[in-house]
Amino acid sequence: MRESELLQHVYDTADGASRQVPIPPGDDMAMLLVGDVHVLAAVDQIIDGRHFDLDTTPLEQVGRKAVTRSLSDVAAMASHPVALLATVALPPDFGRDRAMALFDAMRDTARHYECPLVGGDIAVYRDATSPLVCTVTVLARPGPAGAVTRSGARAGDTLYVTGRLGGSLGPDGLGRHLTFEPRITEALLLADNMRTRLHAMIDISDGLGRDATNLARRSGVRIEIDAARIPCATGVDWRRAASDGEDYELCFAATGDVPSTLAGLQVTAIGRVVEQGPGTQAPVEISTGKESIDATRLGWEHHS
Amino acid sequence: MRESELLQHVYDTADGASRQVPIPPGDDMAMLLVGDVHVLAAVDQIIDGRHFDLDTTPLEQVGRKAVTRSLSDVAAMASHPVALLATVALPPDFGRDRAMALFDAMRDTARHYECPLVGGDIAVYRDATSPLVCTVTVLARPGPAGAVTRSGARAGDTLYVTGRLGGSLGPDGLGRHLTFEPRITEALLLADNMRTRLHAMIDISDGLGRDATNLARRSGVRIEIDAARIPCATGVDWRRAASDGEDYELCFAATGDVPSTLAGLQVTAIGRVVEQGPGTQAPVEISTGKESIDATRLGWEHHS
Repeated sequence: MRESELLQHVYDTADGASRQVPIPPGDDMAMLLVGDVHVLAAVDQIIDGRHFDLDTTPLEQVGRKAVTRSLSDVAAMASHPVALLATVALPPDFGRDRAMALFDAMRDTARHYECPLVGGDIAVYRDATSPLVCTVTVLARPGPAGAVTRSGARAGDTLYVTGRLGGSLGPDGLGRHLTFEPRITEALLLADNMRTRLHAMIDISDGLGRDATNLARRSGVRIEIDAARIPCATGVDWRRAASDGEDYELCFAATGDVPSTLAGLQVTAIGRVVEQGPGTQAPVEISTGKESIDATRLGWEHHS
Repeated sequence: MRESELLQHVYDTADGASRQVPIPPGDDMAMLLVGDVHVLAAVDQIIDGRHFDLDTTPLEQVGRKAVTRSLSDVAAMASHPVALLATVALPPDFGRDRAMALFDAMRDTARHYECPLVGGDIAVYRDATSPLVCTVTVLARPGPAGAVTRSGARAGDTLYVTGRLGGSLGPDGLGRHLTFEPRITEALLLADNMRTRLHAMIDISDGLGRDATNLARRSGVRIEIDAARIPCATGVDWRRAASDGEDYELCFAATGDVPSTLAGLQVTAIGRVVEQGPGTQAPVEISTGKESIDATRLGWEHHS
């Protein structure tokens, strides 16, 4: 089973945009109207053996990652985190102290980002071989530019990414995919910059190729990326930088004056947004000068 | 590991009540201030082999229960459901069509209660023996009386329950624990009744004995229940009616004029709220006329 296909089914069959749900499922977060206030919400889960390896990963980093993944969705909407809810499903031999340490890590991480943990549940499996599952629901409120979706990119925009991409999953299973900083501050600075017109944004979780494709498809545009301009992490070539997942950097389409750094983090123009042609051209192409590569062939999915 | 002890740790170490979080974790739902609007939030999870048996339970009822359990928390706060988010973790051999049917059941149930599904995630385990886990986060807005907590019961209140208690889990694993109606309409009618002063409420998930004890402890009062007045489901004696879990009926403390039915559902006065004495008396005692039984010895927990 492909998870992305199943999720697409969820989005396709959910109710569309309405006054009560101005941003329906399918973006980084959905947006609701509660009274006269907009509230953003998203949920995510991580599973031992899939998103981390409990044999080698400190519990603190597991709890941290469960929370920061969700906070990265808040960043992608250029919004302010408000509160978190978390669940944990544990094998019966997990141990009371470790269960508490895991929840403490989630609560402390949430608190660090001024996003209090306001609800939780803990359940214990019958079977000792069942893997640890953590889910995190995050609530947010729109930032200064309103919630920034994946669907607002326009021909003429430039495509940018923050930081450096690729290699977040080390050969030992550790690495930046556990320790990354969700780019909340950077996204809010960008949204608040009067000289930048921020049109669309996504966080890079499945890899630049796939996530830029998602942004292009939702915006009804094409994107051309210059391979040579992709900022690569040390020891990583452009192909891996565009394919590897879990960077949790921001990828955005904007016009106007975009700062070259945000809170000290580099911002790189890597491509341009163009009109969707009449043909069957790929939504995102990465050009090396010698050839153009369909970016849907790059990128990464947690496969079963 | 006792789940209730782990959860208590979560509540104890979370931030207390504040302007931003007027109702902290530990009630049926937490309440947040977003802008100038109060938003309620709670999360819950159900696991195959613990809360249902996938071998005998139709998928539609699994999806329905995942949602209605959370909606019962909304009822317990006398609040209006606003939106749901759901995750599913699936064994790899679960099958695409069944995964979609499960999510469809959650979405359709949510829609039935005018609470759109606005977010979701699906993940697939590596291992075929890992059990299905569904989580549901529900968001709500306070009803006409504001959010009704577990902590407002006062000496002089009468204790009431809706419906009939006990026997919700049939010998075949099916029964009312799968098909119950969350008492949202009834709770809102009660909160809106000008002649009722509704002070505290909880939904009965762990059994009357345990849930009334929770309400008494949080309110700093004692409760005396008359065994003979507990409304028992057919074929169930008062002991089971006070012990069995998953009734999802409302238990509330109120004064004034309380209707004998709400939307056609019977409401029964079963006891009284009294002052906490100086001694070591149990928070809730159930009296048979011959003896008084500590209700903390009744009630039911999903043990590991």
